[in-house]
Amino acid sequence: MANEKKLVEAITSMEEDFAQWYTDVVKKAELIDYSSVKGCMVIKPAGYAIWENIQKELDTRFKATGVENVYMPMFIPESLLQVEKDHVEGFAPEVAWVTHGGLEPLQERMCVRPTSETLFCDFYAKDIQSHRDLPRLYNQWCSVVRWEKTTRPFLRSREFLWQEGHTAHATEEESEERTIQMLNLYADFCESVLAMPVIKGKKTDKEKFAGAESTYTIEALMHDGKALQSGTSHNFGDGFAKAFGIQYTDKENKLQYVHQTSWGMTTRLIGAIIMVHGDNSGLVLPPRIAPTQIMIIPIQQKKEGVLEKSAALKEQLLKAGFRVKVDDTDKSPGWKFSEAEMRGIPLRIEIGPKDLEAKQCVIVRRDTREKVIVSLDELETKVAEALETMQGDMLERARAHRDAHTYEATEYEEFNKLLDTKPGFVKAMWCGDEACELKIKDDTTATSRCMPFNQEKLSEKCICCGKEAKKLVYWGKAY
Amino acid sequence: MANEKKLVEAITSMEEDFAQWYTDVVKKAELIDYSSVKGCMVIKPAGYAIWENIQKELDTRFKATGVENVYMPMFIPESLLQVEKDHVEGFAPEVAWVTHGGLEPLQERMCVRPTSETLFCDFYAKDIQSHRDLPRLYNQWCSVVRWEKTTRPFLRSREFLWQEGHTAHATEEESEERTIQMLNLYADFCESVLAMPVIKGKKTDKEKFAGAESTYTIEALMHDGKALQSGTSHNFGDGFAKAFGIQYTDKENKLQYVHQTSWGMTTRLIGAIIMVHGDNSGLVLPPRIAPTQIMIIPIQQKKEGVLEKSAALKEQLLKAGFRVKVDDTDKSPGWKFSEAEMRGIPLRIEIGPKDLEAKQCVIVRRDTREKVIVSLDELETKVAEALETMQGDMLERARAHRDAHTYEATEYEEFNKLLDTKPGFVKAMWCGDEACELKIKDDTTATSRCMPFNQEKLSEKCICCGKEAKKLVYWGKAY
Ligand SMILES: [Zn+2]
Ligand SMILES: [Zn+2]
Repeated sequence: MANEKKLVEAITSMEEDFAQWYTDVVKKAELIDYSSVKGCMVIKPAGYAIWENIQKELDTRFKATGVENVYMPMFIPESLLQVEKDHVEGFAPEVAWVTHGGLEPLQERMCVRPTSETLFCDFYAKDIQSHRDLPRLYNQWCSVVRWEKTTRPFLRSREFLWQEGHTAHATEEESEERTIQMLNLYADFCESVLAMPVIKGKKTDKEKFAGAESTYTIEALMHDGKALQSGTSHNFGDGFAKAFGIQYTDKENKLQYVHQTSWGMTTRLIGAIIMVHGDNSGLVLPPRIAPTQIMIIPIQQKKEGVLEKSAALKEQLLKAGFRVKVDDTDKSPGWKFSEAEMRGIPLRIEIGPKDLEAKQCVIVRRDTREKVIVSLDELETKVAEALETMQGDMLERARAHRDAHTYEATEYEEFNKLLDTKPGFVKAMWCGDEACELKIKDDTTATSRCMPFNQEKLSEKCICCGKEAKKLVYWGKAY
Repeated sequence: MANEKKLVEAITSMEEDFAQWYTDVVKKAELIDYSSVKGCMVIKPAGYAIWENIQKELDTRFKATGVENVYMPMFIPESLLQVEKDHVEGFAPEVAWVTHGGLEPLQERMCVRPTSETLFCDFYAKDIQSHRDLPRLYNQWCSVVRWEKTTRPFLRSREFLWQEGHTAHATEEESEERTIQMLNLYADFCESVLAMPVIKGKKTDKEKFAGAESTYTIEALMHDGKALQSGTSHNFGDGFAKAFGIQYTDKENKLQYVHQTSWGMTTRLIGAIIMVHGDNSGLVLPPRIAPTQIMIIPIQQKKEGVLEKSAALKEQLLKAGFRVKVDDTDKSPGWKFSEAEMRGIPLRIEIGPKDLEAKQCVIVRRDTREKVIVSLDELETKVAEALETMQGDMLERARAHRDAHTYEATEYEEFNKLLDTKPGFVKAMWCGDEACELKIKDDTTATSRCMPFNQEKLSEKCICCGKEAKKLVYWGKAY
């Protein structure tokens, strides 16, 4: 019990200090470690396994829409980065520069990719000739580097892992359609796999991606009421195509520019899972993404038959398709419970000598701690039910939390007060003028998160300047 | 037919110019494209899909031996690279240096990882404390950079994709055991999945990895008689542990150094597949690694029912677990045949109006062009058999080629002549002295490929100096 206490006590409570709670969970659940490279992290097995599951799920969904994976170089020559002017302005201040190869200085310095639009464009310019070559639906899984000043594990680090899709289409309609299709795919993935509800919408011009015509986003609300941009999808129109000369001959044999998109999700999603679902005992993983869904913990494991039965149950559940482990170390059951909770394992199964006799076991849900006694005859069914119910409940809880922390404002004073005192989203009308966005940011530190697809008219007037309102906007403080 | 000819004519024959044949196949089978970044390539969908299958197969095998995946930073601070002196000497001349982050010069320059021993050691020094923490069996999938002067697609490029396993153990016996275990895993993967026979052995001190105590290798023979090092596994003993201070307390509470290994395979394997199995019509992919195993090609596809049946057969074969596509473009069947051959697709199925009537189809093997007429009732069985037989035949053919190009020499003149006139491996005895290796390289351009596990005694004397022979060595010219 002394050990057990130590493990739990080591976490700061989220009410006391949410940032510290986050850091504690990330470390105690063994998701990451800090490295000797400032601003870069080591993703440990428990963290990387979550990323592998995210990859598997997203990759399958991408491929079902016709996307193919490729791999582009990690370096971008400076002249290539500079071809599209908005893009270079957006990224040049935060890239890492390679200046020497081996013992020789390079003739032209190269940056480590912060994103790969320029590389894909350079490739497409040669690769695409005819309308028969379109659409091109390529994606890559890789790491990218952005030289951030302040960093936090998963949320903002100098190197992170992601996927970046880059597509080329014959028409603006098709590129717009693909942009929205991928945003919907992301939203569906977040809700159905990560149990994380999101607001789908469009970014304002101020917040859009460097070089994009339009940027769409999904925004999630963390437990502390801050917003997290969880995935973005950009329509470039023919802007990059004109800068890079990406043209195809159409059916009438006329030269046309392609229309492009890009869309990405990152290891930041792991941070979102932590901050949406975690509690004061640690991580809580949605069953569909959990690397280990069930931890079997033997009780009085030295008693005859307990370890054997635990191993047999593991095999039985593995065969039924669950991801399951047995903790047969010589730690106390209490310690093992705390450890499985810290790591966010959705279900634990307790089995001891009395259970053996009664042909039963105890199933405990990580999120509610609800305990049920289950006959071993019904084990697979009950486990499947518990995992499904838990997945659904987690989404509903997150949605209820989000809705309870979403406010509306029609007066600036009220708007300010909400942003100051009520962590969460504030919905308010906006005139479309960047000056109002800037003033709101100055006054409140909140930014426009998105103009939701689901538009409402709360008032006729901009919350800031009082001029005619054009759009409903979700405002919030963001990670 | 004109188009068809163009496709095939564009390949140089391998007898005429093997290097050009290789480059032609790589481009025409659409595996890669050159990029604007000198020495780096774009891996296109057909190439990347092979890598994805390699990853899936290897990753499953790794995990079955207890290996877990992690992710380390891509940068190594210069001071960290310098900790182990042999290691830095081996790699410093060929790394890319990052000197600026954003607009600021870095306080300490960092290289892009050429390999990650130093990062894993830095991590393990903090991560490992007790014998309970051992073994650590970590692997990562990533890209690495080595600033090579001359490059060739897949075989030698400035950036390449690989996996690097890094393990830490309590004892030298355990690290040696893991080193050999992974070498055997690699050899088995090459033979059973890539249909590529390999020689397992140990590298001489001259050829071993920078910082390793021993390096083990698998060596394959390409169609042109050159050797390709296809995977390596290194035992570091406690050398890195002493340099980095990686210690654990043993069961008697005494501080001990860990013993480490590392092992890697790369996208170079795709080059090996091309050069072991390819022919003058293009790529030939072993069925177990082929992204598309079967291409269905409709004959007279405008005739009633042909396209419908083709689509139905595809669905039927997909359900049976095969990777299958239909080529329903409006190209001629002849063009489609050439294209499927160029891409190395193991089987093609032809189905036309007459076949529909007779409830049959034609199956053609890529490697032998053998055609068989198969009743549609037996389709799955016959397809499975054809793929299995082809996989086995490819391995046997490659083995026969390898054996027919493996020579023995006991006199230096004969040895020289063999290396000069007979592309392949030459087996000969060696005294163990690096001076002889250097002289042989000078005289013949051949290097010691390995000291095979399967040792024979061809003579008592070193092939070069005539002193007492210690080891049988495979010599050859290498990629
Ligand atoms: Zn306004
Ligand atoms: Zn000698």
